[in-house]
Amino acid sequence: MALYVQKYGGTSVATVERINAVADRVCRFHRDGHELVVVVSAMGGETDRLEALGDDISSRPDPREMDVLLAAGEQVSIALMSLALQARSVQARSYLAHQVRILTDSSHRRSRIQDIDLQHLRRDLSAGVVPVVAGAQGVDESGNVTTLGRGGSDTTAVALAAALSAHECQIYTDVQGVFTSDPRMVPDARLLPRLTFEEMLELASLGSRVLHPRSVEFAGKYGVPLRVLSSFEEGSGTLIAGEDDSMEKPVVSGIAFVRDEAKITVQGVADVPGVAHKILGPVSDRNIEVDMIVQNVAEDGRTDFTFTVARSDYDNAIEVLKPVIKDLGAGLITGDNRIAKVSMVGVGMRSHAGVATQMFDALARESINILMISTSEIKISVVIDEKYLELAVRAIHSAFGLSKEQVSEE
Amino acid sequence: MALYVQKYGGTSVATVERINAVADRVCRFHRDGHELVVVVSAMGGETDRLEALGDDISSRPDPREMDVLLAAGEQVSIALMSLALQARSVQARSYLAHQVRILTDSSHRRSRIQDIDLQHLRRDLSAGVVPVVAGAQGVDESGNVTTLGRGGSDTTAVALAAALSAHECQIYTDVQGVFTSDPRMVPDARLLPRLTFEEMLELASLGSRVLHPRSVEFAGKYGVPLRVLSSFEEGSGTLIAGEDDSMEKPVVSGIAFVRDEAKITVQGVADVPGVAHKILGPVSDRNIEVDMIVQNVAEDGRTDFTFTVARSDYDNAIEVLKPVIKDLGAGLITGDNRIAKVSMVGVGMRSHAGVATQMFDALARESINILMISTSEIKISVVIDEKYLELAVRAIHSAFGLSKEQVSEE
Repeated sequence: MALYVQKYGGTSVATVERINAVADRVCRFHRDGHELVVVVSAMGGETDRLEALGDDISSRPDPREMDVLLAAGEQVSIALMSLALQARSVQARSYLAHQVRILTDSSHRRSRIQDIDLQHLRRDLSAGVVPVVAGAQGVDESGNVTTLGRGGSDTTAVALAAALSAHECQIYTDVQGVFTSDPRMVPDARLLPRLTFEEMLELASLGSRVLHPRSVEFAGKYGVPLRVLSSFEEGSGTLIAGEDDSMEKPVVSGIAFVRDEAKITVQGVADVPGVAHKILGPVSDRNIEVDMIVQNVAEDGRTDFTFTVARSDYDNAIEVLKPVIKDLGAGLITGDNRIAKVSMVGVGMRSHAGVATQMFDALARESINILMISTSEIKISVVIDEKYLELAVRAIHSAFGLSKEQVSEE
Repeated sequence: MALYVQKYGGTSVATVERINAVADRVCRFHRDGHELVVVVSAMGGETDRLEALGDDISSRPDPREMDVLLAAGEQVSIALMSLALQARSVQARSYLAHQVRILTDSSHRRSRIQDIDLQHLRRDLSAGVVPVVAGAQGVDESGNVTTLGRGGSDTTAVALAAALSAHECQIYTDVQGVFTSDPRMVPDARLLPRLTFEEMLELASLGSRVLHPRSVEFAGKYGVPLRVLSSFEEGSGTLIAGEDDSMEKPVVSGIAFVRDEAKITVQGVADVPGVAHKILGPVSDRNIEVDMIVQNVAEDGRTDFTFTVARSDYDNAIEVLKPVIKDLGAGLITGDNRIAKVSMVGVGMRSHAGVATQMFDALARESINILMISTSEIKISVVIDEKYLELAVRAIHSAFGLSKEQVSEE
């Protein structure tokens, strides 16, 4: 018998039928003798519907009131899920954030969990009751409703699992787990049975939308084993946990990619301290997130400074920079808003030389030009022309033997 | 400057456009220098939608979870209304029941308000902020969400008005106020500018669906002036307040009616003590509400016992009675499920003789047979064949000079 926190996302509870299917699953776990805490998101589409109502009424909606509005979504889900469990003779009890209570700071729409009171949950668990907790919401010191922002329900689940020292935090989604790459682009992508927190974090931030980086970070910090699995199909999904020293580490775990990127180059910048800040400061001030940054080797005291942003921020970023380059006495601003980023992630890279070379070679064989390169300890990212994205991902996937067939032959 | 509690029902906040229209109205009141507390219901249709979801999942839904589910409806409305007020530069702040806090007992789906903490509301009012409170919901001692049941939002508004000693509690609906009879049936029905709590209570219980009896009773108990008015049209509506001795009381204020009634007669019942209880006890045990009760004068120690129920309970009530009459040694059960009840209400009846006679005369002139009669101090009700309902209401309405034209000629 073990304690599990199970989180079911919006698509898993989008309809009465799906809620019933989830309840069947929870019921089986419960009958197997496990202790369970269930966290649910708002029914699929509901958060968007509520947000649209708010935006319809106000062009600059007050974050406090938006949190009250959005929190109604999970409130509906916890009630329905509790009813569905009770209809299966499983004792269940819904909890809103203020009932648990999940204390957060007062930053509406992006609050952070500060403390969780476990009194009610522990009482329920020891009485065989399944607590059903509203995901993504909290309450601040003054009793205001707060929401945790993107990936909030995952964060709620991980926080509860950490606080309760759960055996595992299971994130049920509409995919079977984490794959070596997006199966829609790479048909022979393989389900990864196990990843480290670090690897998942790199994959999550790089566009593999299975888990939000925040919840992975949280799980890693507290050492909560996270499992991503499908609420529609059977299977053990992907376990994300600490590094297991007994295992041979694969050099490359997965290939992530981000479309819709753009790069901007400021040419002829003086190679003196403080230039990077002068260029990126005004960009950040406009809440434009900068991803990769590359500065070329200086020639004649002048250099080129290149960075990438989301494609939707491209025009805005160039507009912001126009007055800046005059001040800097820099030359032209050039850019390209048809680029994409491909990244290889794997803890094994640490101990294996030549991984980058192998990746560049795979791209060269397909005549794909690399526009930018950025590396970290367990990741190599390259920026390429967007039109080569699919080709690049498949080439790298194949070069590193990540496909199903290749693996089964080893 | 006065303090008003304004309650807007489901139809008044059914769409973003209507919420904006209500916000315009609240805004005008606020700019006129009044202090305001706004109570809102769930958006029209939302409560039914949520209830249907719950009923879809469970045939006997747990009342605690249904309360969590339904309370989400008002949560959405208070957030949207607050946003709409803020968009008009009116400071506003939404309150859920646990935030106010509105303490109730733990009877889910029909809880009763026990106490209201005015601390936050008073602070807001003195700072010029409009508190927007979720109608129909409360929180019990243990922090569980409760709902007040039918007419709940009106009750919340009246309770807040009583606690805050408001100048008036204004109930905004989709009708202009309380009429001498239903304008859909009596086209020349007249808007009543003023009614006593007692009159409104009789009219409310008798099928005039403008206000729920519970909120009228509550207002009467605490002497809170209630005003019913339209959120779509201008007008001062109907004021429901204590009796005003300076005014001539109209003999008859209004004609109410209830369709869909049925009557059941147990014939040949022994005229001994305890018989009424033996007949009605089993009926009440099945949660069938009994309305009028008439027992004929006994002949030879035997009598007939007649009562009315809602038409939907007719078959059920007869079924319940079958074994009972055997035990009682009574005769036949007969019944009629095509009857209707018409009632005349007015505080002036107290001091005017002959009102009943005048009503019976009006019916006789139309050859309408009276099946049952029941009277109270300010009300006379008759049961008639349902097919004569419209004719009867119009005849009485006209006989007592309630029509628009007749009044203006006086």
